[in-house]
Formats: sequence, structure tokens, C-alpha cells
Amino acid sequence: MAHSPIVLLTDFGTQDGYVGVMKGVIAGIAPDVPVIDLTHAVALGDVRRGAMELWEAADYFPQGTVFVTVIDPGVGTRRRPVAFSWNKRWFVGPDNGVFTFLLMSHEPEASVELQNREYQLEFVSTTFHGRDVFSPAGAYLAAGTRLEDLGPAAPDLMRFDPPMLDIRPQSVSGEILYVDHFGNLITSLGLLSRDREKIHISPWLPVGPADDFPADSPHVALPGGERLTLNATFGDVPEGDLVAYIGSRSMLEVGVNRGSAAARLGLSPGDPVELTFAA
Amino acid sequence: MAHSPIVLLTDFGTQDGYVGVMKGVIAGIAPDVPVIDLTHAVALGDVRRGAMELWEAADYFPQGTVFVTVIDPGVGTRRRPVAFSWNKRWFVGPDNGVFTFLLMSHEPEASVELQNREYQLEFVSTTFHGRDVFSPAGAYLAAGTRLEDLGPAAPDLMRFDPPMLDIRPQSVSGEILYVDHFGNLITSLGLLSRDREKIHISPWLPVGPADDFPADSPHVALPGGERLTLNATFGDVPEGDLVAYIGSRSMLEVGVNRGSAAARLGLSPGDPVELTFAA
Amino acid sequence: MAHSPIVLLTDFGTQDGYVGVMKGVIAGIAPDVPVIDLTHAVALGDVRRGAMELWEAADYFPQGTVFVTVIDPGVGTRRRPVAFSWNKRWFVGPDNGVFTFLLMSHEPEASVELQNREYQLEFVSTTFHGRDVFSPAGAYLAAGTRLEDLGPAAPDLMRFDPPMLDIRPQSVSGEILYVDHFGNLITSLGLLSRDREKIHISPWLPVGPADDFPADSPHVALPGGERLTLNATFGDVPEGDLVAYIGSRSMLEVGVNRGSAAARLGLSPGDPVELTFAA
Repeated sequence: MAHSPIVLLTDFGTQDGYVGVMKGVIAGIAPDVPVIDLTHAVALGDVRRGAMELWEAADYFPQGTVFVTVIDPGVGTRRRPVAFSWNKRWFVGPDNGVFTFLLMSHEPEASVELQNREYQLEFVSTTFHGRDVFSPAGAYLAAGTRLEDLGPAAPDLMRFDPPMLDIRPQSVSGEILYVDHFGNLITSLGLLSRDREKIHISPWLPVGPADDFPADSPHVALPGGERLTLNATFGDVPEGDLVAYIGSRSMLEVGVNRGSAAARLGLSPGDPVELTFAA
Repeated sequence: MAHSPIVLLTDFGTQDGYVGVMKGVIAGIAPDVPVIDLTHAVALGDVRRGAMELWEAADYFPQGTVFVTVIDPGVGTRRRPVAFSWNKRWFVGPDNGVFTFLLMSHEPEASVELQNREYQLEFVSTTFHGRDVFSPAGAYLAAGTRLEDLGPAAPDLMRFDPPMLDIRPQSVSGEILYVDHFGNLITSLGLLSRDREKIHISPWLPVGPADDFPADSPHVALPGGERLTLNATFGDVPEGDLVAYIGSRSMLEVGVNRGSAAARLGLSPGDPVELTFAA
Repeated sequence: MAHSPIVLLTDFGTQDGYVGVMKGVIAGIAPDVPVIDLTHAVALGDVRRGAMELWEAADYFPQGTVFVTVIDPGVGTRRRPVAFSWNKRWFVGPDNGVFTFLLMSHEPEASVELQNREYQLEFVSTTFHGRDVFSPAGAYLAAGTRLEDLGPAAPDLMRFDPPMLDIRPQSVSGEILYVDHFGNLITSLGLLSRDREKIHISPWLPVGPADDFPADSPHVALPGGERLTLNATFGDVPEGDLVAYIGSRSMLEVGVNRGSAAARLGLSPGDPVELTFAA
């Protein structure tokens, strides 16, 4: 029988055997379950970036997938180790905000604190709960253990503020969230879609109505005075030119056709970005 | 029942979740099929290097393997997304030359353009066809979908020129193709074999006869005047010395025993290399 | 039926297709066996570091796991390619010391030299035994081939000296072994455990008695005069501060809470570390 996978997301890098050892622990508990790496290159302790990666990826994995997320600068201190079900998938990790963006769209169906020692390794270290606590919990869930057997209910999971997104009459403003492998700038101007007539923007949190803007004259304004037309893809501009587009995450991105926008512009996370619809 | 794997080759890096999300899409369509990373570190848009990696690897994977290759600087423009069968294996990717070296040895058995929306994700972005088009196609092929169901026939796949290899009476000349992780220089002097009496060289394209040279006095000449005997392996020279050898791809390589030839010599792809048989 | 995994540990990096091709070879021989990467980022030819990674990881993988270890600067020369069973797991690799730390705790149950050409690829290159010799051997073992079928007995596997660990009446001294992804310094002060009253230290080799020290006043002394209390985990000190703790490998480590101890202290492998119990 085919099994839904376990997905690993950490800031452990792949230079040491840390991630391999987590997979060894999983193979001992749930040997039939395939394990997929989301990424292990999240910057040390960058919980917010991990939260974004998790949110972007979760819906592309099949129902029943177990996500084990270990970006855990507070390992060994009192932050809660938790597991919960959400939109027919399972999530395991430290309760430090890493589930923030997921929880904006759906509430967890149930959440528990990982207190039951039966579902942890016999020796639990003070510095590697990815191996001793989170991998076992994920593997037991994937192998059929019930969520409530892992520990007592743990309501009120920690959440950050949503990404900055300010929708005004003639413009939408936000900030650069991160830079990807290609040097593309991923911005907080998210949840966009576009058809021939309208550009539709939903707020990150369901606190206000979504908004529609005319599709015919949008421009992207960047610090330093750069002003770009909104295009569809890299190849819409000549090689080496800057290009703004709605990326594969439905977020506004800025890139360079066959180049790096981050290197070209010298911008970094936190720098402001504006999408304007003035004529 | 054991399944042949899906193999992924991209220029996406492993810093973001791009590759992980592709695996999520595959797990949803073909959950029983193991997925193997060939590499995701091809330089941004370096289609020629990707073509070389694919060619070097393909025969080492079992029949029935599906290769999903996404080095795709023209994503979202009119380059064709294609799939084809070749030597009892399947290949999926953009028709931009990335299959060049494969196609030198065998013609495709059949090739199609990926037009059938039924075998793509419901939402197809303009910038991430690896997720929306190529991964689904590969997963459906691995799960038993027939090639012709993916779209109409797409003949005449794009091909680059073969690597430079000039066979002359007393020498063979070519160029450095790339530098590997160890700093070894992989050259275009390819398809070599050697026994006690002869060094046999086949041309990259079957346009002329292969040739045999005496095995007793071959030398490798590099820019800057460096001249090396042809040896068998790193340990044939003292630690720290340059060594020329026929590498694991049957191509002439230049390395340093326990060191980096690229760092030592300061040579790069495109620099000339000559193998001489003069006494 | 669930299979124990094959685990790969190399210095090949993930920039080229070397590791992917090894997995292709394995998929052709043992298609049902999952393959796990321990790490491929061991520094070029750093057999001692590979030996440490293998030792730290082995017990966390289930019985029946096959470890294929290819840190092999002597490839193609006379070092023996070997396989052996150890503590109900299998190990395959070059006999160059990479199994040293494993062999300190248990002797191999049986060991052979990989001489039987039937269990190698038809063409064996002089430079890539990971593909041609070691991956096939590992895959055949995982698929049920008996160890003794791979070749004749190969006793007396090569061993390095154990890590430096000098236990004295009031202190224990050793050295920095390596630096991990986080910049934590992993030291040779190993096999420690701690309870309320005692810190227990076992020697690396069973050549002398283990020893117990009072748990109430241990300090760690580093070159340059730095002196640290022994804590439990990163979060026990303020953000940005140095912290000494017994790490997840039961070895003394020095880190920085949310930072890099290697960057802060400028220390490297080989630098001395002392744990003192003087009042």
C-alpha cells in the first residue's frame, strides 16, 4: 500500500549527519513511509522564513502527509513541542511561530503537546529534539498512532503577525520577504491573481474584503526609483533586464531574466515594495 | 511491486522548497514511485551542463526510469514542454537542447508535446512549470499513463553541437567542458578506452570512423605549457601532483591527487586541451 | 514488505551527478530498498571526519541497514574494498580507517574483501568505485546476497588512533574535533553523561576504567583564556553568549546561543579543550 510521505523542514543544513540521523529514526519506526526533504537550508533559527516555506508547500503534498519542522532555536527550553492536524495533513514541531502562515487559512483540527515519553527515543538529549522527539512523533503519526496518544491538548499555537500588505485606493504596499536561489525577490504583496480585466488581491488575514484593481496599468515601484511594468514571466523582457511578475506562490516577485535581481538591485528582506495602479 | 524511479535534474538549488514541492506533486500522483535527485546544482540556465549530466547518468538507471529535467530559462515562453521515450527510459522537460547528448547515441522512440491539460496541475503558473507541468507529466508516466495521452507528436527535438573533439593523425584536441566538485577538469576528449596496446577514441557523433592510437606514449598538453603523462588514477602520482586519466565517463580528465586541478591551474570551461601521441 | 535502508556517506558533494548515479545503480539491483543520504559534504578525503559521522549515526538506524561509505582518496590503488557485518548492520567501503570509531565499540562479526566481479558493474573504472564496486555491493547485500559471496575473508580492518581524551584526577583534556553547520565546536571529550551528582566519562577505548566527577562545579577552559560553566542547552545563556554543554553525541560541545562559536572564538579542529572540576 502506498503511504503518504513524511516531509522534513529544518535549519540543520546537509553538511553534518543531523538530517540523515532523523531519517534513521524514522526508518526504525515507519520503514514503509517515504521521506521528502522540503529544505534544510533555512537560515539558523529563521522561524519566519521556515513558516513561509511550510505555508507555500503544504497544499502541494497529498492528504495524510506528515510535516516535521525543526527550526528550533529554543530547543531544550520551555517552548512546547507540538503536533496538530490541519486540512487533512499532520504537522509536528516546536510551538514557536513556525506554523503561523498555515494557521491564517485554516484552524488546526486538533493539537497536542508531545509529552508522552512512549513516543520519544529512550534518551532525549537537550539539544537535538529533531532526532529524539519530533522525528519519532512524525513517524508514529505516519504509522497510524492517534494524535491524542502523543500527549494532552495544546490549544493556542503561537502566531506571528502576517506579512505586511497595505491595500489602498490606488496602490498596494509591502516589503521584500526573502531572496530565493535565483536571486528573485519574493515580496509580501501576496495572494494576487490576474485576468484580462482585473488584478485581484486578497489580504493575508481574513479581516477585510479582498480588492480588485484594473489590470491595464500596474507598475511596481522599488527603493532607488526603479519602476517596472507588471509582466507574466522572465522571457517577457530581454535577457539581463529586470522583470516584475506574479510568482508561483501568487506573490509579487521581482527578478532578472537569466540573472539575479538581488545582485542587481542590492535590496534585501525588509525593503519596501509598492504596486501602483495610477494612470 | 518495485517501481522504477523518477529522477530529478534541475538548476533550482536546494535552498528553497522548489524541489520539495515537485516531490509533493509527484507523491500525490504516483505515491509508490521512489524519487532520486540527480543534482539541483546546475548553474542557473546552464542547459549544456544539464545535458551532459543527463547523458552521463541515463544508462546507469534501470529501464523504465522517468527523468524529469527542469533547466528552463525560457519558462512561460514558447519553447515546447516535451516528453519522449529513449532506450526504454522516459524523459520529460523543456525542448531547449537539454537532451542533446542523449540523442547523439539513440533517436527517441516517440516524442510528444505536453499539451493535455488533464495531466497538468489545475493552476499552471507562468514561472514554475517544474511543479505545474513537468512533475505531473513524469508522475503520470511513471504511474502508467501512455506517452501519446500527454499530447500530440513533437518531432525534431532541439540539439546543440556536440562537444569539440578534433581527431588528427598524431593528436586529438578538444576543450575543458566543466569542473567537478573535486576540482577535476572534465574535457571534451571523450569516449576513450585503453588497453595494453591501444587507446581507442570514438567521435561524439557517428560521422566518421573511430580511431586507435598507440598506448605507450600519450601526453596531455594544457595551456601554459603543462604536459602530463596519461595515468590510470589519482594515486599513480604523489600527493599534490597533477594527474591526467580517463575518467569514469570515458572522458579525459585532469586532476590533482588529493587536491584541486582547477585551483592549481586556473583553467576554466572552454580552455583547450590536447592529447598527443608523438614519440 | 518493508526493507531496511541503504545509507550513503561520501565526500562527493551534491553539485555533480555522482551520488545520483550511485542511486541509479542501487535502483537497478535493489529497487525496493529506500536510500538515505547521511551526508555528502565530508571534506575531500577527510576519512577521519567520515569515520566520526558514521560512528555517530550507526545506532540510530534500524538493524539490517547497509551503510555504503565512499571517502576514498586511494581509489584505484591497493587499499582493500571491504564489507562487514557489525552489530546487526552492514558496512561497505574502502579499508582506509573510515570504520575506526565503529570498531572501538564492537568487533566486526565477519569481514570480506570485495573481489567477486559478479557483484560489481561490468565495467569498473579506476576512479569511481562508489558507482562500480561499493554501490553494487551494498545493493546486493540489501537484496539478500550473503556477505561471504562478495569475496574472501578480510581480517584486521585498518584503524586510526582514537580521539584524544586524557582523564586526570581533577580534569579531562582533549581537542576540538570538528565544527558543525551551526558553528558549534564538537570536542573529543566524549562519552559523557551527567546526573544530579556525577559527571560520568568513559574512555574512547576500553583500556581503562570509566571515571566519575562531581557534577557541581565543572568548567570548560578554551585557548585564549575563555572559561565557561557547563550548561544543558543553548537557551540556558542569553542570546549571543557562549555555552558549553554535553551534545547529542554525548560529547562536550561549545556553541553560541543563536550564533556561531567557531566564528566567535576563531578556534579550529586540533585546538585544545579542558574540562576542570577544581573548586
